[in-house]
Amino acid sequence: MSTSYVKTQHITFSEEKDALTLKCGSRLLPFTVAYETYGQLNADKSNAVLILHAFTGDAHAAGLHEGESKPGWWDDMIGPGKAFDTNKYFMISSNVLGSCKGTTGPGSIDPKTGKPYGLSFPVITIHDMVAVQKRLLDHLGIKKLLSVAGGSMGGMQAVAWAVLYPQMLHSAIVIAACHRHTAQQIAFHEVGRQAIAADPDWQNGDYYGKSIAKRGLAVARMVGHITYMSWTSMEQKFGRKLVGKEALGYDFSKDFEVEGYLQYRGQSFVDRFDANSYLYLTKAMDYFDITEGTKKLSDAFAQVKADLLVISFTSDWLYPSAQSKEMVRALKANDVEVSYVELKSDYGHDAFLVECTEQSRVVMNYLSKVFVERVGS
Amino acid sequence: MSTSYVKTQHITFSEEKDALTLKCGSRLLPFTVAYETYGQLNADKSNAVLILHAFTGDAHAAGLHEGESKPGWWDDMIGPGKAFDTNKYFMISSNVLGSCKGTTGPGSIDPKTGKPYGLSFPVITIHDMVAVQKRLLDHLGIKKLLSVAGGSMGGMQAVAWAVLYPQMLHSAIVIAACHRHTAQQIAFHEVGRQAIAADPDWQNGDYYGKSIAKRGLAVARMVGHITYMSWTSMEQKFGRKLVGKEALGYDFSKDFEVEGYLQYRGQSFVDRFDANSYLYLTKAMDYFDITEGTKKLSDAFAQVKADLLVISFTSDWLYPSAQSKEMVRALKANDVEVSYVELKSDYGHDAFLVECTEQSRVVMNYLSKVFVERVGS
Repeated sequence: MSTSYVKTQHITFSEEKDALTLKCGSRLLPFTVAYETYGQLNADKSNAVLILHAFTGDAHAAGLHEGESKPGWWDDMIGPGKAFDTNKYFMISSNVLGSCKGTTGPGSIDPKTGKPYGLSFPVITIHDMVAVQKRLLDHLGIKKLLSVAGGSMGGMQAVAWAVLYPQMLHSAIVIAACHRHTAQQIAFHEVGRQAIAADPDWQNGDYYGKSIAKRGLAVARMVGHITYMSWTSMEQKFGRKLVGKEALGYDFSKDFEVEGYLQYRGQSFVDRFDANSYLYLTKAMDYFDITEGTKKLSDAFAQVKADLLVISFTSDWLYPSAQSKEMVRALKANDVEVSYVELKSDYGHDAFLVECTEQSRVVMNYLSKVFVERVGS
Repeated sequence: MSTSYVKTQHITFSEEKDALTLKCGSRLLPFTVAYETYGQLNADKSNAVLILHAFTGDAHAAGLHEGESKPGWWDDMIGPGKAFDTNKYFMISSNVLGSCKGTTGPGSIDPKTGKPYGLSFPVITIHDMVAVQKRLLDHLGIKKLLSVAGGSMGGMQAVAWAVLYPQMLHSAIVIAACHRHTAQQIAFHEVGRQAIAADPDWQNGDYYGKSIAKRGLAVARMVGHITYMSWTSMEQKFGRKLVGKEALGYDFSKDFEVEGYLQYRGQSFVDRFDANSYLYLTKAMDYFDITEGTKKLSDAFAQVKADLLVISFTSDWLYPSAQSKEMVRALKANDVEVSYVELKSDYGHDAFLVECTEQSRVVMNYLSKVFVERVGS
């Protein structure tokens, strides 16, 4: 990775056979998918692993883009000799439908009008994201995946993969995720959406080229950011440390480092993410409920053929271990081969992105085992 | 209580001797305090209990105002035969400094300009709130309180009372509170403040008579509201229940009851609370740190003379039991008579307002015991 740069590729699906019928009932065509690959696809195409990103992630999961110094978002996990060993596996990472990082979303041009979709973009779901990834795999000529893997919203996609395309994968790695959003998870997202909608610059989603809903989006991100950290990680990182002050200001300027940090996180997010995509992706997560139609989780998992690895983190209060354990129980009830690991971490929900040492070991061993047992390599 | 109505009274302090020197260094005079009393002060003035309200509370803690059907915010706890038995005790409840419910705050008229203070109102602290309450007690001729009691921000005031005026109280009841705000507690408040500041109608606090920062304040309240409930209470109350729909809408209208509930909570809050008071009171809580100056909590509690009752709730993740236990340890280290009760509840932080059966029993017994042991009645 250190000597060669990675590049984001784009594939546009415009043929009738590729048309997507979304869960909302709308039809989507054409659509573009941004993706990256790392490593080499082997001769029998049995070593492909699909990486599924979280909410504000993108296709750039690993390696360096030319001219940039910051590697992909899961570079700790993907590369030669790493958990997702690119000497062994062919890694695919694509940006999700509805995002703003190269794959079609509300900021894309609607070919019917020649203008950005805005809120006329159809509401999308985790299921729709997965359907788009399926098109990409078809395009790449991959009939069966060694694994799919992701954390948070990526973990929900992994769950959806295991249920929707049981024949297409040997295993799925579900990290810091759930099988459906709870009231509290929906509530935090709703606050973010309301913060965006409250911003006059949002203009009901029709702001492209006119304004940027900076303030609302920044507030939404701040709420999110608190939920990604833990009580302990916030206390260790900030506590009551003052920001460049000897004493409390007794005014409404920043006093505490944690205030400055949140403001910075909010403001910098605005430069890299689209307010409408924020709405669409949070809504997709809130809609996610793999028991829809079956009611019982064990029934929803009845068709699963893949082995599963489920990972959660002790201090993750946004997607707590209880939700992972619920999935594990329902999988076991279906006699699915499932490994569950609760990793100790103070990093809260963010742990899957930052606490990679132990996670790497668990994933590396698991994937090697699946590769031997299920592919025979 | 059923036959007689209670009335909010107001006292304005305008004499030099009453002038407040606030923690920020500013001087405040005149200032008005809104308060209510329930029950009768006994002959030796030994049965007075001061009730301390939480963030968005007011002086109307119990009983009915004429023409209204909703009783005071702690009516379950205060009244004849209740925990704070008005047949035995003389209850005093006042609105805090900086609020918008009758006591002087940023929405009050600055006598120097004849206009509302807005952000020219001095930043206030929990210590300042307590200093104002002290003036009220002086006015009422009460030299020593049987007890002070409050939950959340009210609990912080109770802690401040015990430390700042050790000779003035026999006991203090500290519920769902802490001795200082942590990074996460500050962070949630900061999001609320940023949401208000992001609202163009807020106009840097100078909006009185011009506009109402409805949208920002509503978002701030929604964030707060999530933190007041627990995962379980949200799940039990809402889960994934749909709001007046047979099926998911796949649009940006309300789908889930929890979304509608939060929106309603946000919008109705705007009618009863002032955005600037939201800023001032959250800041007061964030500034609160009883160890300021001493660093060690046990040193901060060295002068405490009162008995203490500390109550926390199992599902309160905003002010978790760990913070209460920390106070209890430091009080015990000073040989303070302290009782600690962790009550089982699914209601989260709101429990002190809604889960009153067991809390009543604990408080009633505690207060009777203190009355006998410390006052001899």
